Order: sequence, then C-alpha cells, then structure tokens
Amino acid sequence: MMKIRKAIVTAAGASQRSLPLQRLVDRDGVEKSALQIVIEEIVSAGVDEIALVVCPGDGDSYRQAAGDHAGRLHMVEQHNPRGYGDAILRAADFARDEPVLHLVSDHLYVSRESQRCAQQVVEIASSQSCSVSAVQSTRESMLPYYGTIGGRLVPQQQRLYEVENVIEKPTPTQAEQQLTVPGLRAGHYLCVFGVHVLMPSVMELLAAELAATPPGRNLQLSAALANVAQRERYLALEVAGDRYNIGVKYGILNAQLALALSGKDRQAVLTDMLELLASRDRQTESLATAN
Amino acid sequence: MMKIRKAIVTAAGASQRSLPLQRLVDRDGVEKSALQIVIEEIVSAGVDEIALVVCPGDGDSYRQAAGDHAGRLHMVEQHNPRGYGDAILRAADFARDEPVLHLVSDHLYVSRESQRCAQQVVEIASSQSCSVSAVQSTRESMLPYYGTIGGRLVPQQQRLYEVENVIEKPTPTQAEQQLTVPGLRAGHYLCVFGVHVLMPSVMELLAAELAATPPGRNLQLSAALANVAQRERYLALEVAGDRYNIGVKYGILNAQLALALSGKDRQAVLTDMLELLASRDRQTESLATAN
Repeated sequence: MMKIRKAIVTAAGASQRSLPLQRLVDRDGVEKSALQIVIEEIVSAGVDEIALVVCPGDGDSYRQAAGDHAGRLHMVEQHNPRGYGDAILRAADFARDEPVLHLVSDHLYVSRESQRCAQQVVEIASSQSCSVSAVQSTRESMLPYYGTIGGRLVPQQQRLYEVENVIEKPTPTQAEQQLTVPGLRAGHYLCVFGVHVLMPSVMELLAAELAATPPGRNLQLSAALANVAQRERYLALEVAGDRYNIGVKYGILNAQLALALSGKDRQAVLTDMLELLASRDRQTESLATAN
Repeated sequence: MMKIRKAIVTAAGASQRSLPLQRLVDRDGVEKSALQIVIEEIVSAGVDEIALVVCPGDGDSYRQAAGDHAGRLHMVEQHNPRGYGDAILRAADFARDEPVLHLVSDHLYVSRESQRCAQQVVEIASSQSCSVSAVQSTRESMLPYYGTIGGRLVPQQQRLYEVENVIEKPTPTQAEQQLTVPGLRAGHYLCVFGVHVLMPSVMELLAAELAATPPGRNLQLSAALANVAQRERYLALEVAGDRYNIGVKYGILNAQLALALSGKDRQAVLTDMLELLASRDRQTESLATAN
C-alpha cells in the first residue's frame, strides 16, 4: 500500500480569499470555519501535513481560522500568481517526491457513505499506487465550470475509471467527441470534484509545462492531468458524495443546508426552515394586500 | 425634527469578532459582508457617520469588510473591555452631544415594511425628540437572552410604548411582576431588538454608572436605560420586522434564509432548498437501507 502523508490545499484565488474564514455548522453540529472543515476532510483520510497555498499576507488569518489544526499547516505564499496549476506547483518543495492529496479551499464535500469523500479517493490511490481524481457525473450544462475527463470503466468495478483524456471546461462538441463515457446517463459527463491524489510525476509535468508557458499566461492543472493520462496509469473515482462550491452566490447557504440536512441537527434545522417559510409567506401576503 | 447624524456599532465582543466578516447575500441578491448589511441598515436611516467599537487590532479587517462604506467608519478600539455599556461609552467623544443611532453587529434585521427597521426607529426618535428602543413581542422562554422593557401604549398609537422599566435578562417572576405590558399576547414581553436611538443623557448616565461600578464588574446598557425611563421621556417601538442573531448556532443560516426568502431570489432559493431536501432525503433512505 502506498502511503499518502501530505496534502496541498490551494487558497490563493483573489476572489476567494475570505471563503476559508466563513463559519459553518458541520454535520456533527459544531460551528467551525470552512477551512477547518476542509482540514478535517483531509485528516479523516489519514493525511497529517498540509501545505496551504495562500495570497501573501493571508497566512495569519488562515492560521487562526484553522483552530486546533493550525500546527499541521505549512503556509506557502504565492507571489506573482500564474494560475491553479502554478499554485499547486508552489508546494513542490513541500511534497518532495511523495504523492499528495490535493483539495481546493472553495468547495465543501458531503459524503453519502460513512467514509468521507477524500478518504474514498485516498484509499483507491493507496491500493492502486497511481494518481486518482474524484469525479462526479455532471449535466452537460455545467461543463463551462469544470475540468472533465474521458475514459472507460475499470473491469469489475462500478465507479472507477481509467482516465484517457482531460479537458478544461470543454465545449459540448468537444465533450461529445472526446469525453463520452459509456454507462453514464445521457447528456452527463465525469467532471472533476476538487479532490485528487497526485503522484510526483504530476509535479514534474507541471514544472515542465510552466517552463514552456509564455509569460503572462496561466498554468492549468487539467493540461498536466491530460499529459498524465497519456503516460501512466491514472484513475478517476466517481465519489459517493456531493460537492458544494462555496464561492458562488448562495454557495455557503446551500453547503450549510446540505451539512445540516445530513447531520445530527437535521430535525431542528428542518423545523426552523418551515417556520421561516411560513412566516416569510405571511409577509409576502401582507405586503401584497397592502399594495 | 431632531436630526440624527451619527451611529455607534458595537463589534468588540470576544466571541463575535468574525461575525461582521461573514458573507451573505442580501435581499437585493448581492453578496456582501454582514458588516456591510449593518452599515446599509444605518445609511438607509439617513445616518452618515459610524463609530465602530472593535477589539484592538480588528480595525483593518473590518474596514476591508465594509467595502465602499469604509470611509464612513471611525474605529474605536476597546482596550480593557468592561461590557456592553462600556463599549457604547467608548464612542462618547465621537457622539459629542448629539443623539446617536446604536446597532449591535451580531444581528441582522429583515423589515416587513418598505422602511428598514433602523429607519422606523430613527423616524420616531426624530419626531418625538427622545430616546427610542426597538422592541419585539417575545415569548417568555426567550427572556434569558434579552433586555426587556415594561411600559404602556402611547395613546392613539398602535406599536409605540412609553417605557417605564428596563430589566436585563429578567426571571419569569420579575417579568410578570414588573414588565407586563397590556395588550400583548399572553406570555409575551417586549424585548429589545438591538436597535436604539440614544439621547446624550444616556451617555452621561453610562459614564456615571461606570464611575460607580466596582473594578472587575461589567457595565450593562439596560441599567442605564432603566435610569433613563425614570428621568425623561423614553419610548419603545414595536418594529415591523424580524431580528436574526447571527452569533448563535445556525444563526447565519437562518438570517440568510430570511433574507433570501424576502428578496428578489426567493423563487430560485426555494427551488434549491427543495432539490436539496429531496436529494438529502434519498441519502437518508439509502443509508438506512444499507445499515
């Protein structure tokens, strides 16, 4: 079994700097920061050490938001940022020549099994000793938002795919021609989920790509992953869980509702929701009557 | 008409320092910080200048969270804090001898009328030239959380009361004996709402009380307000709106739902809620079947 001991979390996106600081109530009914929830996702997968790639100057507030887990964090400041692939590459010294778990900091995950989403991915990567990306069957209309993979089911497996191709934000035509996966619902594709295990070869490919990228252009992760798919075994796991992008409008609301409705406070939160709905309906009516 | 130009917002409570930084989507569908929503509540009442009483060192992050309104803020650091009354008193130099609007930073308000809650209070205070506290009819079981007033309806008015007494977090017996207000539903009391207009006399009373408070004890606002009620005209307005304490568990969730269900995105948010409920119900079922 390959052991995965390190994780890289990217949190340097200029528009998303306050997201890890947002407070939510987790499934266990405990209030914590979004960053703490992400860290607990990682720790639950048996991974101890975390590099957090941040905008210069943000380290202190993130360390504070990490609470008891602050000691696990290695802050890596991304000066002169050149995109998502570049952010991951900044933690290459931290990763050394080990495989790493990678999570983004602007998504939260709610598993549909007892194992959390990151743990599902780490277990497959450990047993298969290769890079693994979590994916989710996603409607064609959402392709403009995600890296998307093409591939074939691994024989005898239900939710595990050999990745043959990766395209960042494909057009519907590209997707239909190059990314159709047998066995999925019609009009659905396997889009990445924000959770990956990356072998050291991915870091090498990212470094090579960055060297070949003209100044002023950004480095994507998907391009390196497409390269990985050409060279070595690379799997995608359809995770039993849902991702919630907290960086979009009402993203935190939906993530909070998903956590609450899947957790120990489900009944209390449902009661609050119904009371609010009833009270805010009366208001709408009384305003309508007044006008 | 008495003009109210200044506001004091208290944001120095040790457990609540990150609340003003939390991001929510307002009724108008725009994402902003909780602090921005509080400031807009104040500005909508025609009040321009705001003293924000903060923990030492928090000024910069709050100024950032205030966005376009940062220029309105005067930061007042509360060193060696001695309670809520003391926090307000720290802004006495800012208030000079003018009446001030006062809001707490850990509540959000959703009006049931076209006028926002703070504006309703400011209009009454301006026309009556006296201190006014917003109050809400509140179940007896919630008395442990609030300052509570006793008084009598102002003749010819529906929701305006002459305040005769104020007790901080009264016991049910205290409330029944000293704070019963004719005309309210049985078992209900008028609890403060976190929005007040305070005349300069309140600052004077707070200063006198602080001088008389033994070291190590905290100064409450309610004690000074009880004193005001004995000395001069002091009104309470039952505001047409709801308060949401974002400092309690699921407080941000409930505030966000209330804003969304009262605003322009009501239909979209309802649809998301129903989808989530359906999807999280299937999960509960499938987990139950699996176990």
